[in-house]
This record gives sequence, C-alpha cells and structure tokens, in this order.
Amino acid sequence: MYVILVYDIKLDEKGKRVLPKVYKICKKYLIHIQNSVFEGELSKSQIFQLKRELSVHTRDDLDSIIVFSSREKRWLDKEFWALKDDATSNFL
Amino acid sequence: MYVILVYDIKLDEKGKRVLPKVYKICKKYLIHIQNSVFEGELSKSQIFQLKRELSVHTRDDLDSIIVFSSREKRWLDKEFWALKDDATSNFL
Repeated sequence: MYVILVYDIKLDEKGKRVLPKVYKICKKYLIHIQNSVFEGELSKSQIFQLKRELSVHTRDDLDSIIVFSSREKRWLDKEFWALKDDATSNFL
Repeated sequence: MYVILVYDIKLDEKGKRVLPKVYKICKKYLIHIQNSVFEGELSKSQIFQLKRELSVHTRDDLDSIIVFSSREKRWLDKEFWALKDDATSNFL
C-alpha cells in the first residue's frame, strides 16, 4: 500500500514529549516529506504495526493522525508547488 | 480530481502574514481536515487556479506546498487514527 500520513500533535506540556516519539516512529516506517507529513510503501501488517506503535503515545482527544492509503502508488500524483524537499535524502 | 493539499509556511516575520492568506485561499477551494491539511474534489482548472492564487503569496525558497491528486476518490482510503475532526462542519 502507498501511504500518506499527516499528524498534528497538540503541543501542551505532555505533547512536547509525544511529538518526538511520534516523529521517530513515523521515520522508522516512512519518508519525511514535509513538517508533519510522511509517505511510503507499506504492507498491511506494517501499517497495523505502525498504528499500534503510535497509539501508545498519541492522545485520542488531543492529537490527530490521518492516514491516506492507496493500493497503487501510480493512482496518486504528487506535485511540489513551492519549496521542493529532497525526499530521497530522508530514506532510512 | 480528488486532492490532498498539505502546506508548511515558514513562520518568519513575513510568513506570519503569508499563513492566513494561504489558509483562506485553501478554504475557498477545499475542506480543512487538519492543522495544515486540506482535501476536496476539484476540476483541473480549479487546481490550476488554486495554484496560481497561492503562488502570489508563497515563497519558493521558504514555504512548502505538496499536492497529491487522484483521478478517483475511491482509489484512496482515509483513516483517522487519533482525534477525529468533524470535517463536514468545515464546508464553505
């Protein structure tokens, strides 16, 4: 599956500790393409695992994570309208 | 076309004025689903128009806008893993 993950962690006292954890977990599975946006190719079991790892830290009433997924990458075009990140350098 | 737009405006002095303009333009065309994430159904000419309007304000060397688009909305699944926004209330 081709996955786009966007997060918005509420930056209260606890959130400041949640954010780096969420970032680190996302980086383990996906490529960082913008401030709080990640993308990449994951299997269904990897998606499940990512979701489980993130749920340990995120707070259901404060933090937002939205995951878009497509069976085929080619079904989705991507354009950089302004600043173009060199996403390839972020590969793990 | 089904469109997902994510922006990251650098919040320097000028950026603080750019951000509300970018937000307002995006809201005119799309639904606000997370901090800096919008989605919606747009024609190719609307996408072109949105791009043109945004380019008046964004700075190519500082601000990032990434636009994902898919010919068919059904090719893309969307899941809320944490906080679930009531996106429908944001319709213009």
